[in-house]
Amino acid sequence: MRQAGRYLPEYREVRSKHSFLDLCNIPEVATEVTLQPIRRFGFDASILFSDILIPLVPMGAKLSFEEGSGPHISNQLRTVHDVDAMRSIEPESDLKQVMSAVKMIRKELPETTALIGFAGAPFTLASYWVEGGKPDPFVNLKTMMYREPGTFRSMLAKLGETVSRTLTAIVKAGADAIQVFDTWGGVLAKHEFREYNLPVLKGIFAQLRPLGVPMTYFVKDGGHLLSEVKETGADVIGIDWRTSFGDARKVFGKKVSVQGNLDPTVLFGDEKTIRRETRRVLEEAKGQAGHIFNLGHGILPKTPIQSVEFLIDEIRCAR
Amino acid sequence: MRQAGRYLPEYREVRSKHSFLDLCNIPEVATEVTLQPIRRFGFDASILFSDILIPLVPMGAKLSFEEGSGPHISNQLRTVHDVDAMRSIEPESDLKQVMSAVKMIRKELPETTALIGFAGAPFTLASYWVEGGKPDPFVNLKTMMYREPGTFRSMLAKLGETVSRTLTAIVKAGADAIQVFDTWGGVLAKHEFREYNLPVLKGIFAQLRPLGVPMTYFVKDGGHLLSEVKETGADVIGIDWRTSFGDARKVFGKKVSVQGNLDPTVLFGDEKTIRRETRRVLEEAKGQAGHIFNLGHGILPKTPIQSVEFLIDEIRCAR
Repeated sequence: MRQAGRYLPEYREVRSKHSFLDLCNIPEVATEVTLQPIRRFGFDASILFSDILIPLVPMGAKLSFEEGSGPHISNQLRTVHDVDAMRSIEPESDLKQVMSAVKMIRKELPETTALIGFAGAPFTLASYWVEGGKPDPFVNLKTMMYREPGTFRSMLAKLGETVSRTLTAIVKAGADAIQVFDTWGGVLAKHEFREYNLPVLKGIFAQLRPLGVPMTYFVKDGGHLLSEVKETGADVIGIDWRTSFGDARKVFGKKVSVQGNLDPTVLFGDEKTIRRETRRVLEEAKGQAGHIFNLGHGILPKTPIQSVEFLIDEIRCAR
Repeated sequence: MRQAGRYLPEYREVRSKHSFLDLCNIPEVATEVTLQPIRRFGFDASILFSDILIPLVPMGAKLSFEEGSGPHISNQLRTVHDVDAMRSIEPESDLKQVMSAVKMIRKELPETTALIGFAGAPFTLASYWVEGGKPDPFVNLKTMMYREPGTFRSMLAKLGETVSRTLTAIVKAGADAIQVFDTWGGVLAKHEFREYNLPVLKGIFAQLRPLGVPMTYFVKDGGHLLSEVKETGADVIGIDWRTSFGDARKVFGKKVSVQGNLDPTVLFGDEKTIRRETRRVLEEAKGQAGHIFNLGHGILPKTPIQSVEFLIDEIRCAR
């Protein structure tokens, strides 16, 4: 999950001088905020500072971020004509600023620190673009799925192509691993996820496979989708704090590694709680093919920095 | 789930003359909006029009509903003193208006139409009261859980007592069945749900058991909590559209009945989709000890009335 953010004073300092979109679009600034948490905490891996919606802009989305209310897309996708008008992109030129940031970060990072690039999953990207912002309860999106399944499918296919191309370019620019975030995929019932979302995800991971980098897939609230998630072809599956490692193991077996899953609100607890819950995650994850420690979702804005220090200390002591 | 609502013109007509709280607090008006969907659709059972937060008012919550932004509680629970100050209630007098509505509705309903009373689960009620409104991401609530587990527990215990007493009074006033709604219980990890939420829920259902009415428990996003949910002691478990009947049956066996689980957004689909998805739910539910057809969550404001008619027609034809 994003490591930089409002919980860091050095991030707030940069953010006070730049808009959120600037942070994503000016390579030097993106580099700075990506490196901040590495300088402070020395994590094993670093994650590119960007936003999943950035690749939608060259596709034609009119994207803005309003203070306090999150992303807004003014030209919502609703009809077959809107979907036909979605442009296909060449990330090397259309997302040049992102690729420059990746190159710059890779150069500045310690050699032993991996750089993770990421993209949103097609269903999640569609959620924002169809609804025009935070999608809950997904009425317009699902109306399209139920009434115009053909249009819905070609929208996901186009977004899938963007995701594959973008992640390929990010790896070529220097990323050592990639992640696909499916923030909203968990609102689909099992049979719908299988019908619409899974084929596109499989396509993405199959296209990226030859690049030879580890690939992670994360779907929030996806406890009911474990067997579908296993089929995506990702090497690592991220789970949120609601899915236990035990339940994941029952479905995944030992074939995939698992990333997760501390509830980000644990970091609002006292030291004893943070250390206890961190140990619990480490204990429960034993017996996985591999375990990447992570929060079960993004770090929250008011997280005390000292909490992150307790967390890291507990993990390093356990090694 | 709530049957009345903004999708009905007769509801909007009443609502244009009364605030949302009036609808809950004036027995004649609550009766009118409760009966509206029964008159129009002739459902087998009717659900009391009310709000889960109403019983918090005599406990001391300063509750208001602001147009468009949902519930707001201005005196949030944060400290042990706040929790100590929560009043215990006598629903016969403190929620007299609700009990009057139940009596009035029971008298006006056809004899063969069951009346369902409901309450929010303690964890969900706590979510609203601690956060002061729609709780996401639950930072204050979980901070209390992690830092002051004793205070957190006594808060849930007090709310549990309110829920037991309120539902007992509702049954005595004439309700034929009860439901406990746990809108937010699904944000808890398995071990937390088991530690904090489950004991209080068990206590509620044990206290209500002697009343001899069917008891339903519903937790949204609770696919990871099926074995815990089974232990609550409820006769009927509500599932949302993300949990399949197959997965539910694996855990519940044939001991409990299941209620659910059509995705409310299906009602924005065309006739063919609505009929197909309704049949799918009916088919998948075969083999349960019992099945109560329901939406997987509340009916959405802009749902076309004709969609509800297609749904009902499909169910009645399948009988």
